[in-house]
Amino acid sequence: MKKIGKQTIKFDNPPTISECSSIVGPKEAQGPLAKYFDKTLEDEFWGAKSWEKAESKIIKEATNMVISKSGISSQDIDCVFAGDLLNQCISSSFGLRETNIPFFGVFGACSTFVESLSLGSIATEAFANHVLCATSSHFCSAEKQFRFPLELGNQRPPSSQWTVTGSGAVILSKSGNGPYITHITPGKIVDMGIKDANNMGAAMSPAFADTLITHFNDTGRNPSYYDAIISGDLGHIGKDIAIDIAKSKGYNIKSNYNDCGVLIFDKNSQDTHSGGSGCACCATVFSGYFFKQLREKKIKKILLIATGALMNSTSSQQGESIPGIAHAISIEL
Amino acid sequence: MKKIGKQTIKFDNPPTISECSSIVGPKEAQGPLAKYFDKTLEDEFWGAKSWEKAESKIIKEATNMVISKSGISSQDIDCVFAGDLLNQCISSSFGLRETNIPFFGVFGACSTFVESLSLGSIATEAFANHVLCATSSHFCSAEKQFRFPLELGNQRPPSSQWTVTGSGAVILSKSGNGPYITHITPGKIVDMGIKDANNMGAAMSPAFADTLITHFNDTGRNPSYYDAIISGDLGHIGKDIAIDIAKSKGYNIKSNYNDCGVLIFDKNSQDTHSGGSGCACCATVFSGYFFKQLREKKIKKILLIATGALMNSTSSQQGESIPGIAHAISIEL
Repeated sequence: MKKIGKQTIKFDNPPTISECSSIVGPKEAQGPLAKYFDKTLEDEFWGAKSWEKAESKIIKEATNMVISKSGISSQDIDCVFAGDLLNQCISSSFGLRETNIPFFGVFGACSTFVESLSLGSIATEAFANHVLCATSSHFCSAEKQFRFPLELGNQRPPSSQWTVTGSGAVILSKSGNGPYITHITPGKIVDMGIKDANNMGAAMSPAFADTLITHFNDTGRNPSYYDAIISGDLGHIGKDIAIDIAKSKGYNIKSNYNDCGVLIFDKNSQDTHSGGSGCACCATVFSGYFFKQLREKKIKKILLIATGALMNSTSSQQGESIPGIAHAISIEL
Repeated sequence: MKKIGKQTIKFDNPPTISECSSIVGPKEAQGPLAKYFDKTLEDEFWGAKSWEKAESKIIKEATNMVISKSGISSQDIDCVFAGDLLNQCISSSFGLRETNIPFFGVFGACSTFVESLSLGSIATEAFANHVLCATSSHFCSAEKQFRFPLELGNQRPPSSQWTVTGSGAVILSKSGNGPYITHITPGKIVDMGIKDANNMGAAMSPAFADTLITHFNDTGRNPSYYDAIISGDLGHIGKDIAIDIAKSKGYNIKSNYNDCGVLIFDKNSQDTHSGGSGCACCATVFSGYFFKQLREKKIKKILLIATGALMNSTSSQQGESIPGIAHAISIEL
């Protein structure tokens, strides 16, 4: 691999995405992408005694599923990159503690899925035969931790997003027939001073635009090169802002750009306000929907840019703004 | 680089540790290693309005310091790996948001320093000229978040450890005169069922032993190969357990093994019970003390194994055990 331009890495032997798995919760199971997910849950607990334990179970079963589907023995997986939104990333560490695979914990808030694929791709070209990447989030554990106890029944403002319950897991392999991860463009932290923790789309869209445009500059590509440019969880408001920022910088992405948080819920019937969010939003929509579109050759080139808001409830209470980040990977047949 | 044995990576062109910096708090400034740290603070706030903001300032200044000491322009640093103990790693994201360098957030609890050096080493051999690695922790923000408000004045049990206030930052470079990171052995999650959140040393020492012995098996080395085998923050109790586990597996490490949490505070006069802990424990003791020992050729081969407890306060309240992890790097002149 080699660095090209300011911050993009181009792979000489692009890693193959060998297999993906996706598990989602009951609300996602009522959304427009329901039929693409491997498993849909009937309730938020899945037999566990707490939302946190349920989230651990979801990422555990998603990783078991992707290993099983791939036919690759877990002993042949060289390392795992995983993370989630819970404090100290306990969903991943508890969910994956029985895997017996060297474990790298990563945290990029809702950008974690693409961060794990980026580092997993580097590891695959550099030394590994197979790498496992996984992330999760859970509406109830996230609301409890970041906002209010669900039992309070607080109203949610129109700009708020709905954390996706679910997990997506991926196995990357050194050899295979694609789809291939050909480039990664890791993002810088971008903080434009947005302080509204109920408007994550606005806080993260400048980071999305920064990574998007850097990717185009570094690779010499333009928006029309890709069949689809997909952001992680900007939601309806953030998506509109992202289109506007890109346009102001000379890039028209309106025709082939969409957002996983926009796609996963039905705007009219599901009452999620600005759409989906969370580590699992991008992870399940990619693993469930886009990966199958690639495999069936319905699309051939995707630029996947997951966005994250690098704050916590303490930082918001202390009056801090919300630093955003966005990591991009280019996936091609 | 190539994988050797079960889980070790050997570098063909080992990255150089070009420079280190360390900043510590007032209690560490009264400890036996005080004179080795680059900067010691007079109070826990350093002019900031909260402990969290102080911790962000500490990691920010530690990274500014290592960049300044190295003479390398921040524009020439290809990426940063950073993480910390605060929820959603806000110390790192707020502290480093102005660096303008592609940012990979990592979380391995107190193993984060060596996790960041491991991934930084892979990045350096694979594509980067220079990589920045940094971690922090803060006694007051950690107590507030993981245990009790300091204002309560709770008694601490004898097995508890004292979170180090400080930050260590490192620049790795593709070329240089060493010390070199020659091998990394990333650890698996090991959970032996320990549930006492006031005895982290006991919870983490099995993970330390697992990675230690795997490293020896993978490399064909034995304890006497190294001038020093150093764990991150097992403390006095965990250190004794680690020696016992290693002995039971046929490895006598007693003569050249020590722990950063044991070294940073004076057992008799500083009342920290089982010693130091936190991401900054290993980071400051390595960056402040051992790096200088290597530069002055007083020691030539170190095996540095940082340990982490992958739990949070919710998991403990829900009756969960404490999964441990340990990542090892071999540093040689």
